[in-house]
Amino acid sequence: MGKGRLEAFSDGVIAIIITIMVLELKVPHGASFEVLLPLYPVLLSYVLSFVYVGIYWNNHHHMLHAVNHVSGRALWANLHLLFWLSLTPFVSGWMGENHFATVPVALYGFVLLMCGVAYFILAQCLAHGEHGNDALADAIGKDWKGKLSILFYVLAIASSFFYPYLGCAIYAGVALMWLIPDTRIEKRLRG
Amino acid sequence: MGKGRLEAFSDGVIAIIITIMVLELKVPHGASFEVLLPLYPVLLSYVLSFVYVGIYWNNHHHMLHAVNHVSGRALWANLHLLFWLSLTPFVSGWMGENHFATVPVALYGFVLLMCGVAYFILAQCLAHGEHGNDALADAIGKDWKGKLSILFYVLAIASSFFYPYLGCAIYAGVALMWLIPDTRIEKRLRG
Amino acid sequence: MGKGRLEAFSDGVIAIIITIMVLELKVPHGASFEVLLPLYPVLLSYVLSFVYVGIYWNNHHHMLHAVNHVSGRALWANLHLLFWLSLTPFVSGWMGENHFATVPVALYGFVLLMCGVAYFILAQCLAHGEHGNDALADAIGKDWKGKLSILFYVLAIASSFFYPYLGCAIYAGVALMWLIPDTRIEKRLRG
Amino acid sequence: MGKGRLEAFSDGVIAIIITIMVLELKVPHGASFEVLLPLYPVLLSYVLSFVYVGIYWNNHHHMLHAVNHVSGRALWANLHLLFWLSLTPFVSGWMGENHFATVPVALYGFVLLMCGVAYFILAQCLAHGEHGNDALADAIGKDWKGKLSILFYVLAIASSFFYPYLGCAIYAGVALMWLIPDTRIEKRLRG
Repeated sequence: MGKGRLEAFSDGVIAIIITIMVLELKVPHGASFEVLLPLYPVLLSYVLSFVYVGIYWNNHHHMLHAVNHVSGRALWANLHLLFWLSLTPFVSGWMGENHFATVPVALYGFVLLMCGVAYFILAQCLAHGEHGNDALADAIGKDWKGKLSILFYVLAIASSFFYPYLGCAIYAGVALMWLIPDTRIEKRLRG
Repeated sequence: MGKGRLEAFSDGVIAIIITIMVLELKVPHGASFEVLLPLYPVLLSYVLSFVYVGIYWNNHHHMLHAVNHVSGRALWANLHLLFWLSLTPFVSGWMGENHFATVPVALYGFVLLMCGVAYFILAQCLAHGEHGNDALADAIGKDWKGKLSILFYVLAIASSFFYPYLGCAIYAGVALMWLIPDTRIEKRLRG
Repeated sequence: MGKGRLEAFSDGVIAIIITIMVLELKVPHGASFEVLLPLYPVLLSYVLSFVYVGIYWNNHHHMLHAVNHVSGRALWANLHLLFWLSLTPFVSGWMGENHFATVPVALYGFVLLMCGVAYFILAQCLAHGEHGNDALADAIGKDWKGKLSILFYVLAIASSFFYPYLGCAIYAGVALMWLIPDTRIEKRLRG
Repeated sequence: MGKGRLEAFSDGVIAIIITIMVLELKVPHGASFEVLLPLYPVLLSYVLSFVYVGIYWNNHHHMLHAVNHVSGRALWANLHLLFWLSLTPFVSGWMGENHFATVPVALYGFVLLMCGVAYFILAQCLAHGEHGNDALADAIGKDWKGKLSILFYVLAIASSFFYPYLGCAIYAGVALMWLIPDTRIEKRLRG
């Protein structure tokens, strides 16, 4: 089975997720700077989630680029990933509206963690599917960033019960790790 | 007429349906675990509907894969299917907010039933269109899963007037039947 | 300039328009049949608008199929059409919530009229663009359905000030005219 | 890396942005012309924003048409542009609901300014990426419209603190500058 429609459908769902998150940024009553100020945590939360969903789209893009055939199992692994990503607008809005309080920050981390796990499962399905895909299997075996991220999410969830802002800082740090590509390390580890 | 835009448009509509359902999961006031608890029926309903819409996307994907030409009649049969699918967010939200009460569960089943019927009509249009499509016609003639599903939906609607949870259990069972492919049976029945 | 991205973008916008209209169908409070009943005008309005947007997608699909190159002017004529189509969810929701009262029915007709005019302008741009397109120019010259529709919209707007339901009936009639293809007439008039 | 999915994803996000803006046009209570009147600033703001997002889609379309390969850096520059575009529905709704008051008009200009800057960064990434792209680099070096727009946005933001309507007039003027192509000037400056 070709991968064209899987890519198109995933692009569509991710595009909608990344865009409807902005609906959590409700138009305030009043026309002054003052009515905007209470929105800054929602905006911060939106920026963080936008970057995360962007990272997933980016990685999804790269992973499927290396794949030729997609099994039925991988279609469902992909929908599983999209399911957890689709919860991002909800947890992002909840975290922002509650000014990064403990439980929302922990739940946000839980959804990030499940997205990471779902991405790992999808990668396994694609690499070890019917047709095999040694290049991808190699790359995934060395996916230190993915494994490190999952560890950090667990740490962030735990720390959010003591210092929620530390949890947020870890989420931002993981996002930065994905954003700033250290090409030297990447080449050695992936190539 | 080619099938490219039909696939692209259907992917777009299904991607939006599957994603806007999450908007029924309204961000609660308060930041504690307690304010999340009342959301669990809405979340359960969302999971069930996500799986159903995913199954339709998956099956739609496979069916159109086997088709080369699409008649004008099939374009409308496809829009008819998309219409019933587009009512899923509404009935899913209503069922979740009312904790799986009788009438919402029955209406949910009615929409599933109409989706099943619309899918059947689309399959007939594609198989017996101008250009004919014997391979698809054969596969459809043996579409025991589709026929069984419609029977189960009717049963579930009827039972929801006595035990609404039984109706929900049947919906979940039908979804599982589609999710867990018994390749042996499938090969014998389809091949 | 190729037509691929124009088709993809239009498919995306039309898919979103046709799907977000269902958001006007607000989940009611309560779980009985009674709370559903007041929704029937909104549902009727949704069905009518779904069919109209579907007709536009269908016709847009056919028209662009006959075109090879798209001028910059046609890109804007296309955005102009998408603008008027994007107002459909608003007028559809307003008409449904007000049980097909005079002003909403007239405004609904006005948006349909502007969609028809915008479609006509787009067809002219495509047929008489830089590269010319005689086949399309011929077809448009004989586009009796498009011209008849615009006449009917004007009639419906006028009649909605006396009998709003007559206006609605005309809208439904025009939709039926597009849905039921009289292939004999079409072949003689288009071929 | 190919540009197909970048185009598809951007088309998806821009299509959603341009369409969800219409959700700011809330269905009013009542069925008379009078209840529509207070919506005219929201409608005006919607028209302006629709045109702006349309211009960005149009320019994005043309720019990527001239590009063959897309670097990882350009993927993120593209997401950066989509981020600022995604704030358009929010600032558009806020400006409309507050009848073009000072702060909303200035913030609207700020988002337009950031979109312009993000577009400039994306153009630089595409033109001076790994594979180079001399044709695009030439075109960008002469992008007088882009540079003029950024200047006008700054002027409009400043003037909105004295005469907000002047700010709006400048926004509309910049949009017109993009809409009405002076092909003679364009050919001399771009060719």
